[in-house]
Amino acid sequence: MAAKKYPAKAHAIKVATHLSLLSPLHSGGPTALFVLASPQSRLWPFCDQSQPFRQNRYFYYLSGCDLPDCYLTYDTATEKLVLYLPPIDADDVLWSGMPKSIAQTKEALNVDDVKYVTSLDEDLATCGDKVVYTIESLTGPEHATYLSKLATAVESVTVADAHFMTALDEARMIKDSFELDLMRHASSISDNAHAKVMASATAATNETHIHAEFIYHSIRAGSKNQSYDPICCSGRSCSTLHYVRNDDEVMGRQLLLIDAGAEWKNYASDVTRTFPLSGDWTTEALAIYNLVLEMQISCEKAIAPGKSWDELHLLAHQIMIRGFLKLGLFTRGTEDEILESRVSSAFFPHGLGHMIGMDTHDTGGMPNYADPDPMFRYLRIRRNLQPGMVVSVEPGVYFNPFMIEPYLKAEDAYKGGEYIDQAVLEKYWDVGGVRIEDDVLVTESGSENFTKITKDPVEISKIIKSGQRV
Amino acid sequence: MAAKKYPAKAHAIKVATHLSLLSPLHSGGPTALFVLASPQSRLWPFCDQSQPFRQNRYFYYLSGCDLPDCYLTYDTATEKLVLYLPPIDADDVLWSGMPKSIAQTKEALNVDDVKYVTSLDEDLATCGDKVVYTIESLTGPEHATYLSKLATAVESVTVADAHFMTALDEARMIKDSFELDLMRHASSISDNAHAKVMASATAATNETHIHAEFIYHSIRAGSKNQSYDPICCSGRSCSTLHYVRNDDEVMGRQLLLIDAGAEWKNYASDVTRTFPLSGDWTTEALAIYNLVLEMQISCEKAIAPGKSWDELHLLAHQIMIRGFLKLGLFTRGTEDEILESRVSSAFFPHGLGHMIGMDTHDTGGMPNYADPDPMFRYLRIRRNLQPGMVVSVEPGVYFNPFMIEPYLKAEDAYKGGEYIDQAVLEKYWDVGGVRIEDDVLVTESGSENFTKITKDPVEISKIIKSGQRV
Repeated sequence: MAAKKYPAKAHAIKVATHLSLLSPLHSGGPTALFVLASPQSRLWPFCDQSQPFRQNRYFYYLSGCDLPDCYLTYDTATEKLVLYLPPIDADDVLWSGMPKSIAQTKEALNVDDVKYVTSLDEDLATCGDKVVYTIESLTGPEHATYLSKLATAVESVTVADAHFMTALDEARMIKDSFELDLMRHASSISDNAHAKVMASATAATNETHIHAEFIYHSIRAGSKNQSYDPICCSGRSCSTLHYVRNDDEVMGRQLLLIDAGAEWKNYASDVTRTFPLSGDWTTEALAIYNLVLEMQISCEKAIAPGKSWDELHLLAHQIMIRGFLKLGLFTRGTEDEILESRVSSAFFPHGLGHMIGMDTHDTGGMPNYADPDPMFRYLRIRRNLQPGMVVSVEPGVYFNPFMIEPYLKAEDAYKGGEYIDQAVLEKYWDVGGVRIEDDVLVTESGSENFTKITKDPVEISKIIKSGQRV
Repeated sequence: MAAKKYPAKAHAIKVATHLSLLSPLHSGGPTALFVLASPQSRLWPFCDQSQPFRQNRYFYYLSGCDLPDCYLTYDTATEKLVLYLPPIDADDVLWSGMPKSIAQTKEALNVDDVKYVTSLDEDLATCGDKVVYTIESLTGPEHATYLSKLATAVESVTVADAHFMTALDEARMIKDSFELDLMRHASSISDNAHAKVMASATAATNETHIHAEFIYHSIRAGSKNQSYDPICCSGRSCSTLHYVRNDDEVMGRQLLLIDAGAEWKNYASDVTRTFPLSGDWTTEALAIYNLVLEMQISCEKAIAPGKSWDELHLLAHQIMIRGFLKLGLFTRGTEDEILESRVSSAFFPHGLGHMIGMDTHDTGGMPNYADPDPMFRYLRIRRNLQPGMVVSVEPGVYFNPFMIEPYLKAEDAYKGGEYIDQAVLEKYWDVGGVRIEDDVLVTESGSENFTKITKDPVEISKIIKSGQRV
């Protein structure tokens, strides 16, 4: 049974180990105590309905507990992990039933002890000389109250200390086998939902039908929360990276792009597929699709421990440039000249991918959003790959006037517009955009792709057309 | 075209009229200026994803604008309503596309002027002697900053002043024809989704399948947000009023209760149906269902202007008591004795219904949660009905040990347990609970029921069984 529990205790030890490498934890003086709060349950203002609850990821990482209004403490000296539950509210029991008892919670979770929060004050007062590490997980006046309570009880309190945050983030970045199984399961729910979306595509007359289909199969499989708001766009809207309206008619449009991932027990999946609504690819759409597919597969194949993510991102751009030269979208310059100009960023403005875990954009990527190089500014991973990282591999090519025009007009820092063949470009506006995204685990020997839904354009056509007969 | 716009201006005038009845607005001295903020867009802490946004209902009522980070002002002297939009963020345009322009927003909304929030400071500074009425719609430090900005600009500032809140709430309570059309549309989406749920019930093996089905048909119809978290429970869980886990196996259980309503342009619907998962009613389930149906239909028929809601709630209890005596669940006492004891509250603990509007539990009900009488403590409407109110009519009968045992054990204030026939009660635990809920408009001549999905037990059986053939 023990192996079936979320490994909260192992996570606490792992965080402490990381922290001890950055900061002395037990060198004679006060020792370190982690104290974290889960977010408070809240109503919408002027309303008696609860706001959606999302567990603080650090709190979940160190507890496996998905409830609001809790606390946890981890004593790095004694290695004791204690969870504090909110007291039972008799009125709440009447309307919502009994919550799990102390004993049931202890049985369910991998913590050393479970108490009610009413014990927290005394436990803090008697915990001895401690340096408390905490984070700002409460908001508003509750946070101030909580901090002053901590401050009176212990030696010193550090809030979101850089060493502590780094320790938490580095620990979370490398997933253990329990976490990986949760992520494989999230991916499998997404695979099924994406397959159902494809099979139902010809019946869709509005983007919202695609959205509904994905949510339906997620909830049916037990995933009530999406990892992020699904993006379901069609035609030229496929070039709007963060399109979330999902409410346009799709009639007569070439492609549909759906970027959607189910969540499983707070772990994310993040998957994008792009396909022709009719089942038939136009020449231009297929050309761009095959190019993005080549970028995606090549980068995925190159994943291995020690590999620099910058290098993979560059590889995607190189493949894109070569493809654009072949299609005539780029003209005149050499591959190197075009790469150097950064004009490929006009068509592939975002990064190759990001860490995935409890957050869709998970910890540890060390991005540099101030990078003067536009090709790397939005890249969310700026370090070498390590086994246990899970990353998205999601190249894309977009035909978005907002992005391309500054290059065509040679505005400010936008260079290389002269390599674009504007006559050829005209044929591609209606392709909108193509993105293909899988979730990939870095392993000792290379990688494991969690995303199994097909990205083969012929197979995709078949699935879409199979739906026409339903 | 003008008639198609949300009547924000009319709402502002209505609120000012209500307020002027409570407080002098224009009696020589400073005149009243309403200043409201819409909630800020926020990320989840330690995460780059947006928190779900829900427009502040008062802000929407006075603007028809569904965006975060906006302000509105309404000058009660000049009757000028101005909306202030957040400035355009170039980075955001790149990723999310262009927001609506000032001109487009002015065209779309029923306000006198649209500006960017950058103009707000100057407009406030030059607005003259004003008493500003505002509400606490911002949270955290932003609220304090906003208040101090107001305070320096105008004569005086009142936050959530009792007169102002009453004026807002009374105005919202009586819906105009535009609002009623939105609510009829929300109800029609819910009708369809409930029908699809029934038709798919025999294929469901888990409550989550019911949940998924409802959400699917809501989103397909353009309702991305539910009015509230759907309650999908089965068997004995039907007795847990706020059951929202929706994740249990349904095999072998008698009834399924689904309480779910789609939202349409911020207006709610709130509908409950209870039905046998197999399509066949057990004797006990049908007996309770028919009793609740009689309570529901009788109360709905009694709705008319001037009617006291207390009286209707009492009527529901009286019908229930008569029914329980007939079924042998109550024994010995007379109807009056049993009513007097309040033991019927053990089986029907909640109120008959509530106002519905932008909030599922809408404004103006004037409940008294401190009422010493348990039969009326949770009743959310404590006033006479007026045309233009929309109310839920939702009697229920539940067999919940948490609720019934205190009466059986004659604990504290729980009286009348002696009227319960415990041997008969044994047969009913597996019924769990039954609730039937429609949304009803009070009209000049009586009422209009917005909820069209059938509640006839024979028809429900037919729909469920029709699904078996699919």
